[in-house]
Amino acid sequence: MVAELVCVGTELLLGNIVNTNAAYLSEMCARLGLSMYYQTVVGDNEERMYGVISQAVERSDVVILCGGLGPTQDDMTKEVAAKVMGKKLVEDEHSRRCIQEYMDNYLISHPDMTLTANNWKQAMVPEGAIVLDNANGTAPGLILEENGKLVILLPGPPNELIPMFENQVYPFLHSRQPEVIYSRMVKVCGIGESMLEEQIRDLIDSQTNPTIATYAKTGEVHLRITARAEDEAAAKKMIKPMIRELKERFGKNIYTTDEKKTLEDCVVDLLKDQKLTLTTVESCTGGALSARIINVPGASEVLKQGLVTYSNRAKRKFTLVKKSTLKDEGAVSAKTAKEMAKGALESTDCDISVSVTGLAGPDGGTKEKPVGLVYIGCAYRDHTKVREFHFNGNRNKIREQSVVAALVLLRDCILEHYQS
Amino acid sequence: MVAELVCVGTELLLGNIVNTNAAYLSEMCARLGLSMYYQTVVGDNEERMYGVISQAVERSDVVILCGGLGPTQDDMTKEVAAKVMGKKLVEDEHSRRCIQEYMDNYLISHPDMTLTANNWKQAMVPEGAIVLDNANGTAPGLILEENGKLVILLPGPPNELIPMFENQVYPFLHSRQPEVIYSRMVKVCGIGESMLEEQIRDLIDSQTNPTIATYAKTGEVHLRITARAEDEAAAKKMIKPMIRELKERFGKNIYTTDEKKTLEDCVVDLLKDQKLTLTTVESCTGGALSARIINVPGASEVLKQGLVTYSNRAKRKFTLVKKSTLKDEGAVSAKTAKEMAKGALESTDCDISVSVTGLAGPDGGTKEKPVGLVYIGCAYRDHTKVREFHFNGNRNKIREQSVVAALVLLRDCILEHYQS
Repeated sequence: MVAELVCVGTELLLGNIVNTNAAYLSEMCARLGLSMYYQTVVGDNEERMYGVISQAVERSDVVILCGGLGPTQDDMTKEVAAKVMGKKLVEDEHSRRCIQEYMDNYLISHPDMTLTANNWKQAMVPEGAIVLDNANGTAPGLILEENGKLVILLPGPPNELIPMFENQVYPFLHSRQPEVIYSRMVKVCGIGESMLEEQIRDLIDSQTNPTIATYAKTGEVHLRITARAEDEAAAKKMIKPMIRELKERFGKNIYTTDEKKTLEDCVVDLLKDQKLTLTTVESCTGGALSARIINVPGASEVLKQGLVTYSNRAKRKFTLVKKSTLKDEGAVSAKTAKEMAKGALESTDCDISVSVTGLAGPDGGTKEKPVGLVYIGCAYRDHTKVREFHFNGNRNKIREQSVVAALVLLRDCILEHYQS
Repeated sequence: MVAELVCVGTELLLGNIVNTNAAYLSEMCARLGLSMYYQTVVGDNEERMYGVISQAVERSDVVILCGGLGPTQDDMTKEVAAKVMGKKLVEDEHSRRCIQEYMDNYLISHPDMTLTANNWKQAMVPEGAIVLDNANGTAPGLILEENGKLVILLPGPPNELIPMFENQVYPFLHSRQPEVIYSRMVKVCGIGESMLEEQIRDLIDSQTNPTIATYAKTGEVHLRITARAEDEAAAKKMIKPMIRELKERFGKNIYTTDEKKTLEDCVVDLLKDQKLTLTTVESCTGGALSARIINVPGASEVLKQGLVTYSNRAKRKFTLVKKSTLKDEGAVSAKTAKEMAKGALESTDCDISVSVTGLAGPDGGTKEKPVGLVYIGCAYRDHTKVREFHFNGNRNKIREQSVVAALVLLRDCILEHYQS
């Protein structure tokens, strides 16, 4: 089946917001084994919307529309989609009750608001449509079907669209696929994208079913393995040897095969498993490393504090870096990274520490120490380990890569010394 | 003039990347006073690309194509655009020289690479095209013109596309506008979006020329004032009273009218002006506040260190929060925020400090202290100031809003006590 995406909203045409819905829905469609050839953005204009939706319905099997389901006059996606599909609008009792309930709750915490007649417009649905409940807003989603074509309407706000898609649309489309599509994610860190692709060139070149898709992220690469088969058991069986092969090739560089886990999730899990407490010590990343670890709910169990020792004085005071080290080797040096990590263990009483010092630019680079030079250290038990990196890109890119490299070093050290 | 956007790339259709180019180019077109009705994404497929580009050229005056200018077989945007416009490809001497120079430099730092015949494909351009130099890659941009229609081809990577657009395409399109479009940005912090819109409802409702567009960001709102006139002087003159009016209504909440400045830039500027040194003390934001300040090149002049006191023990050790305060009031309390900020001044020797403590969730909320409750403190001279916030959204959203609220409090305190 071929899917097509139509996003409705003047705010997209004005560049007020980035179309993250398109990326999300495209990835989901790929995961469902649907092909996608076109995505269109169109404004809240009846004539142009009618043209775009008609064209999409003509050339694709599944048309996903998002946005324009709100209560105002401007919101007319439902009306236009119904017209294209030749359906009239009728009131949906269930939707009316859901809107009433949602608004009753909402009004408790927003006593200054009132329910307007406009809200009831959202309870009108095209005849015969499947109504999708919206747990996070008042606009229900809809699925229309006619002449073998599916039109799926979703609300625009991502916090409404994503749960609705995951819980209701994904299973629906999955059940409509003639074959079962099953996929697994393999997340790899500590290997560059080009080197990784080199190492799986043969698998990519010979892929038919299952397929491998690579998604490059900063400092990591995600591999999605997808198989099509007549049932899930068969698809899982097809995927197994590929996962095994990847595990053989990338070993410990695979940090998870769990779709939902991030690198920081896995590092926090490892620390929890080993009952280790952590301190971060950052210079050029300026707190971005600790902030990323604290993304993980429950990180407080392992991360007790973070030190951002940006000035030389702070490096000396909080992490006991020697004056002579800063003078002779400089703040961006392997020795400083080492002393930062060791000193942090001393001045706190944690089990393991990770330090970052580097030149994020744009100024301050020299021939010997160019912008992008970063040292990352890790101290634990009686060991310290320091790695040197040369990153490309602007200030932000260098700092992002440093954060990932620090997570990777931390992970490597835990695996090496605590799990073996 | 009506502009239309066509982004080319299978990676967009698979959801591998988010289409940030579309948001950037849309905002630039709006700024140039161009209307935009459609945006399309299409894959690297000749037939479909031909269809999309033909349709765009038919219904719009300016078609901006991005992506698919690389050296591989898959990259065919230029070939298809030339076909649609009825132009044949010829070698461009200048582009050939530029590619040679770029690659010579590139190969110095990448001795394992070689120049392939494919690279020369990028020196072929449609007859009569204006060639746009690419300072950050090998694919030149192109402007084709025929029968009053403009087709503009840009490379896909944002670090190549953005400078090329800013330096070459923007001035070109600007010169083609029958009127001069001039716009100014007014950036406001410390007022919620809906309250701000309420306060300028009359200006928005009566707008014709100049116009006001609002762009809501986390914790701040940007207002773009755009005027059309026969020359720049006239446009500037039309904008002036509107800027004055906004300054009157929002006063100190306007942190800049400089397009390029961020809130953290302005806070760092203020600290530099007053020769103040800063320490951050963070709990729930976990370093995100210091990381954001360190986004600013040269922030090291003012931010000396940051403390992430995530555990109660770290709060006591590094910021001298009293045991009794933590016991009686809890870690998320006005008193803890105050003591964190004051203690940070004592344990470092900075002039001003800002502290954040709150409940980012998802767990840990109670009826008295729900998720989203955040206290932000600021200490300086003999003063301390604490503000209480109730933020909505998920863990990340609450932390993002906290970071902005901390920057705003810091700014308010400097303005109040050092600048008056």
